Amino acid sequence: MSELVGNLLVAQSGGPTAVINASVAGVIQEAGNHMNVVDEIYGGLNGIYGILREDLIDLQEEQTSAIEGLKHTPAAALGTCRYKIDFAKNPEKATKDMDRLFEVFQAHNIRYFFYAGGNDSQDTSHKIHLEAEKRGWEMRIIGVPKTIDNDLPFTDHTPGYGSAIKYSATTVMEVALDVSSMATDAGSCCIIEVMGRSAGWIAAGTVLAKREQLDAPHIILLPEVPFRKDAFVAQVKQEISEHQFCVVVVGEGLKDENGDELGADKTKKDAFGHAVLSGAAETLKEIVEKEIGLKTRTVKLGYAQRSAAHHASEQDVDEAVACGQMAVRSAMEGKSGYMVTIDRTSNAPYEWTTGLKPLADIANVEHLIPRDWITEDGWLPNEKFIEYAQPLIEGELHMPMERGLPKFVHLAKEKVEKKLTPIV
Amino acid sequence: MSELVGNLLVAQSGGPTAVINASVAGVIQEAGNHMNVVDEIYGGLNGIYGILREDLIDLQEEQTSAIEGLKHTPAAALGTCRYKIDFAKNPEKATKDMDRLFEVFQAHNIRYFFYAGGNDSQDTSHKIHLEAEKRGWEMRIIGVPKTIDNDLPFTDHTPGYGSAIKYSATTVMEVALDVSSMATDAGSCCIIEVMGRSAGWIAAGTVLAKREQLDAPHIILLPEVPFRKDAFVAQVKQEISEHQFCVVVVGEGLKDENGDELGADKTKKDAFGHAVLSGAAETLKEIVEKEIGLKTRTVKLGYAQRSAAHHASEQDVDEAVACGQMAVRSAMEGKSGYMVTIDRTSNAPYEWTTGLKPLADIANVEHLIPRDWITEDGWLPNEKFIEYAQPLIEGELHMPMERGLPKFVHLAKEKVEKKLTPIV
Repeated sequence: MSELVGNLLVAQSGGPTAVINASVAGVIQEAGNHMNVVDEIYGGLNGIYGILREDLIDLQEEQTSAIEGLKHTPAAALGTCRYKIDFAKNPEKATKDMDRLFEVFQAHNIRYFFYAGGNDSQDTSHKIHLEAEKRGWEMRIIGVPKTIDNDLPFTDHTPGYGSAIKYSATTVMEVALDVSSMATDAGSCCIIEVMGRSAGWIAAGTVLAKREQLDAPHIILLPEVPFRKDAFVAQVKQEISEHQFCVVVVGEGLKDENGDELGADKTKKDAFGHAVLSGAAETLKEIVEKEIGLKTRTVKLGYAQRSAAHHASEQDVDEAVACGQMAVRSAMEGKSGYMVTIDRTSNAPYEWTTGLKPLADIANVEHLIPRDWITEDGWLPNEKFIEYAQPLIEGELHMPMERGLPKFVHLAKEKVEKKLTPIV
Repeated sequence: MSELVGNLLVAQSGGPTAVINASVAGVIQEAGNHMNVVDEIYGGLNGIYGILREDLIDLQEEQTSAIEGLKHTPAAALGTCRYKIDFAKNPEKATKDMDRLFEVFQAHNIRYFFYAGGNDSQDTSHKIHLEAEKRGWEMRIIGVPKTIDNDLPFTDHTPGYGSAIKYSATTVMEVALDVSSMATDAGSCCIIEVMGRSAGWIAAGTVLAKREQLDAPHIILLPEVPFRKDAFVAQVKQEISEHQFCVVVVGEGLKDENGDELGADKTKKDAFGHAVLSGAAETLKEIVEKEIGLKTRTVKLGYAQRSAAHHASEQDVDEAVACGQMAVRSAMEGKSGYMVTIDRTSNAPYEWTTGLKPLADIANVEHLIPRDWITEDGWLPNEKFIEYAQPLIEGELHMPMERGLPKFVHLAKEKVEKKLTPIV
């Protein structure tokens, strides 16, 4: 084991999940086993955005119970951001940001950096890793995977995904019972929109609610399968004729045969230049009401699906913690420039371990649902997908409750004294 | 005790809730204590809609465990409907329906009828009660209260409401953690739309998530308080200046100062002639983005908020069961033409009992939030509301799980043999 003495920094980036704090807990708790080389355990507030502002907190000042409580607290307890260091688009600003970042690292003797995030965040970690080498600042950087979207490559799945689909599948089950219990002469339709920009993993995951042939969801529309309006209308009619109601789940990034997103508002872009999506369910509702004349209601879970810790998967939480622990163990072994992966070693019984993959291979590669995991007609994921997804939703957390609502933890956030001139 | 020997019929009506089946379980289990007068315990499928079709099932054929399991199974296990017997609008059809209904009652010797539902359903029960007297068919009819909307008068609250606000408040808590953890230069806004046509009880209930001054929700828009766009925009700006993010909860039936509903699609009406509402959150999002330039996301829980048994309130389930039991006990004591009420006898500690109120007093009277339960500026419910609502969300169900998802029961629905000519 190569000994590098200094301070450790952990931060979070991108859209939060129900279990991204569990990964931070894993980092902090594992770091406690390496205090022979780790002087201080710092948290960076709001990821790179806050680190550039030298917004660091001292995590050893937190109560042990608060760190343990992170395992059932959703969202990003350290704060998060969508800040991109983009050399291609704005090399001057990117260089300035990197200069500042290493000023902060050096001022606070940061030798270990763990960044929990999705695709864009792993890309950021990779760039920082390359810069550290270029600048000759000895440090170890490990990316911790996170995203409800499950679109990171090389890892069997991502922490956050299991909880998102456990919650979404439960919602589909409950809403379907509701819709199916209402007598109607013409039948009724309900469209549930879930997240997923390019990959339909969350939408697909709701198939776990379908335990009998007639159970909902009846149709799952995936961004991976081009939307054909006429075929969709025919399929809804078919479902209605069979059981009087139809529950459709749609991934927000559903595209037509020209690759245009349904319900995308093309005039708006997020910080990474992606179109802001909002209206897939409403667009489908209009189609069903106009073409079939069916009463149609919509559900749009939005942020609820990525923050529903009250119904998190225990398996997911355990894996999120393990990813944080693995990141620290790997860094202590001298590794840098890797992302932690979850490696499935057996399907039945489900067994897994953690591994590493070079960040260079990961950044900005998208992981879509394999075509042969979807039925030939494209309306539902098949047995291969179900075998894959089922283990990820197993087990329930023991959620501490207070006056009828979940008791989430809030960190005390003891600030680390700033040493640099503030950026303007 | 007056002895009336015959068969018992229980049915459900209107929009389901997470606990309307618990009331049916209460009816069935209490009926088991009166088998000296009750010959058969029947369920009417899809309320009046199915009873007119003679769609009855034999509930004594169900497994005892299935009846117990109704206490954690959402939606209407017997099926429900929005069928109105409307003498004012269509006297001919209403008379025909009543004739048929009593044909069914007489053919199956129905002497006890329990109808679980909201405002419109209590009205139906009342009409049937009057008809029974007019026609000289001795039977006892008791309405069982149900609605997440909490808009029935004379009962302290309605079964279904506590679970709806426990789930909605939890969602607000989780979504707010998510929104607040994202660093933004300009701040961000999230608008959560909940149900509530005329009364803002559900929206108001999410105030229980606000345990500290700065906690979400920051603004709750109630149909009881006319929406003033300029004041709303100013208030959102104020919240953003204080804590960088703003979580708004809106009841779908929000109205402007002219009484026009925000985001109502006036071209569509439901079976009771009410306008179909869909777009309050989207309308507010447009306002916030246009007037303040804040990135705004929406969450529309839709049917999820009335069917989320996985996060039901134990208090609510207990009360729903008790309402079913009370209905049967009252009928056995000779009462007819009443609705069961929940009567609060003490606030701290919370104590309650069940009572009765004549159906004649209840039908189509709406119960709104008292103005003095809302802050003077109209942006939030006040301490009086919180004292009222807090006890209703206490306690959690032990939800049986199967492969990571709730295990809901499905009734076997053994059909009762039909004796009449089918209606066309």
